[in-house]
Amino acid sequence: MRNSRRGAVDPFIVMDVMEAARQAEDAGRHIIHMEVGQPGTPAPARARQALADAMKDDALGYTVALGLPSLRKRIAQLYGEWYDVDLDPARVVVTPGSSGGFILAFTALFDAGDRIALGAPGYPSYRQIMKSLDLMPLEIETRAEARYQMEPSDLAGLEYEGMMVASPANPTGTMLGRDALGALVDAAQAKGAAFLSDEIYHGIEYDKKAVSALEISDDVCVINSFSKYFSMTGWRVGWLVIPDDTVRQVERLAQNLFICAPHAAQVAALAAMDASEELDSNMEVYRANRQLMLDGLPKAGFTRIAPPDGAFYVYADVSEFTDDSRGFAQAILEEAGVAVTPGLDFDPVRGSGTLRFSYARATEDIVEGLDRLKRFMTARGHID
Amino acid sequence: MRNSRRGAVDPFIVMDVMEAARQAEDAGRHIIHMEVGQPGTPAPARARQALADAMKDDALGYTVALGLPSLRKRIAQLYGEWYDVDLDPARVVVTPGSSGGFILAFTALFDAGDRIALGAPGYPSYRQIMKSLDLMPLEIETRAEARYQMEPSDLAGLEYEGMMVASPANPTGTMLGRDALGALVDAAQAKGAAFLSDEIYHGIEYDKKAVSALEISDDVCVINSFSKYFSMTGWRVGWLVIPDDTVRQVERLAQNLFICAPHAAQVAALAAMDASEELDSNMEVYRANRQLMLDGLPKAGFTRIAPPDGAFYVYADVSEFTDDSRGFAQAILEEAGVAVTPGLDFDPVRGSGTLRFSYARATEDIVEGLDRLKRFMTARGHID
Repeated sequence: MRNSRRGAVDPFIVMDVMEAARQAEDAGRHIIHMEVGQPGTPAPARARQALADAMKDDALGYTVALGLPSLRKRIAQLYGEWYDVDLDPARVVVTPGSSGGFILAFTALFDAGDRIALGAPGYPSYRQIMKSLDLMPLEIETRAEARYQMEPSDLAGLEYEGMMVASPANPTGTMLGRDALGALVDAAQAKGAAFLSDEIYHGIEYDKKAVSALEISDDVCVINSFSKYFSMTGWRVGWLVIPDDTVRQVERLAQNLFICAPHAAQVAALAAMDASEELDSNMEVYRANRQLMLDGLPKAGFTRIAPPDGAFYVYADVSEFTDDSRGFAQAILEEAGVAVTPGLDFDPVRGSGTLRFSYARATEDIVEGLDRLKRFMTARGHID
Repeated sequence: MRNSRRGAVDPFIVMDVMEAARQAEDAGRHIIHMEVGQPGTPAPARARQALADAMKDDALGYTVALGLPSLRKRIAQLYGEWYDVDLDPARVVVTPGSSGGFILAFTALFDAGDRIALGAPGYPSYRQIMKSLDLMPLEIETRAEARYQMEPSDLAGLEYEGMMVASPANPTGTMLGRDALGALVDAAQAKGAAFLSDEIYHGIEYDKKAVSALEISDDVCVINSFSKYFSMTGWRVGWLVIPDDTVRQVERLAQNLFICAPHAAQVAALAAMDASEELDSNMEVYRANRQLMLDGLPKAGFTRIAPPDGAFYVYADVSEFTDDSRGFAQAILEEAGVAVTPGLDFDPVRGSGTLRFSYARATEDIVEGLDRLKRFMTARGHID
């Protein structure tokens, strides 16, 4: 059958790594998973209990397109709790994951050919979703000195209709402070460009709270999800916060593109928002893991890393060891039994010299993984 | 904030009807719901039990993009059971509802500006999803004598890159027989156009089994869902069957656009496929309701209806009573307390003279609804 040109997007390389890891496990090997971008924990117990209860007496048919009113209200309340922002629930749109949020936001805001500035390295699906919707990602090579975040000076002289940032970022875990984020919002608004802020890792932060774009302006589009902090990846439920004058356009699109986000996931998500004890205990694991990584990676020879402010990733410059991160990751998997992600997923240009390490899993796996990495790097002669 | 042109899609008029019905109920009125396109029944008990069990010991994280292998295999088996078609599970793609299936199929097969022939009346979101993806729906006004299905002669001299049919159709419930469906597949393939078959109402059929496009050709794209026959609308899980040479393109798109269909819904769907006793009993209700409608609607003055072969809708030509179906539906809601859908959702041209009645709910509601409709039409002087 005919295939489209715009559908010829790149695969996720991390998926190939996961498949290679699975094959190694099938062959009887023990693999430490530092490649996967999702918590090892399930949805909070409260969330699962709420759904189990709802399944007894609710048909769980379609919800209205913008999402359960109770969930939209509870999400608005979160902006008061986390950022001291007073948010009208009418501006909250429940989406099928942040993935659904991207599709909705991009189709609501941009026409074919529109250009969206975003930093590299970054989450690979940004570019691929844009491509499949005939949008043009304008990738900005960010500086290590800027901790791999865009700066307004990177954008001087460029034309674009949209700008998107992520803080904490994937793959680096670095955050934009209030001034840096504000300067980017200003630059976009001065151009009349839509400003999109991917805040999916908010809540998973260590030394200070992440800043929401909503603290700076109401005229922004925030994308978030229950996948990471709320530990609900497979449930496919997230949300957008959009300006008043975009709600009706997004509602019509949501009615037609999705009908609604999964009802069961919405019920579970609402309960997850009050599971603070369990979520706090997940955070303690990330915090311990992060400290182990910050101590252990340099001892294993990975010294060029941006200290991660949030999320559960460390991005390492390994260009002193290789110009083939894919082959290097493969060797680490084969020789050390540790699955890691080559940087090419995140930065097609410079990613041949970088790796992403995830520390989302159990602490004992992090300890073992770091030990294996150190032995691998020693055997290769990269460290003494 | 800037809004896109392609995002300026039409709203679902049925949503306005549902909102008006809800307001009437809030005001204390009793409303019979003949507007909604979803079963009143929940997911089968087996499906809910399977999920309740899985939530105890499975983190329910992301699945692989194409869906749980066990579910893909079970869906392939259904094609043997229902159509005697031997289907390779590798060609089955689990999607976030048929909505997700449309987005995936359209982006995988068509580029901006491509034209897709489809019949009017038809499911309104077809056109709106196409519009939001910069595709051009080529709407064919079908003939009542052809039971509102396209015929190859309708397409003579037209240029198009895709053709889409639905059988049983929404809003008419009419089906394409094997010869009629085969003639359309031939016409599309002779043009080099992709053929898409929306089979979401398969399983809900009365006098004979619906024909799948896969019985006719492997070089077609079938869209289906667990929403209707399997009674799982709000769960957002469906599937595509695609040719071998499209699988890799669809897989890459699914990885990036959705990551995966909701894991919980996939677990429930797998179990739903073996809930034949409960599904059979749902079918008995539809069957009884359909007979009540076929007897009762003509007695209430709605004589110009296409006998529905499947689904749970009756589409009525009411142009002898009104040229404003929206106002007519509003009067039925206000005066008779029955919510029905004006045809404009399904046919922007001729829908001002048609209504869709759904009989998806409880039988006692159908009896009461028909009685109210008859009294309304008598009071209006349309029947004696």
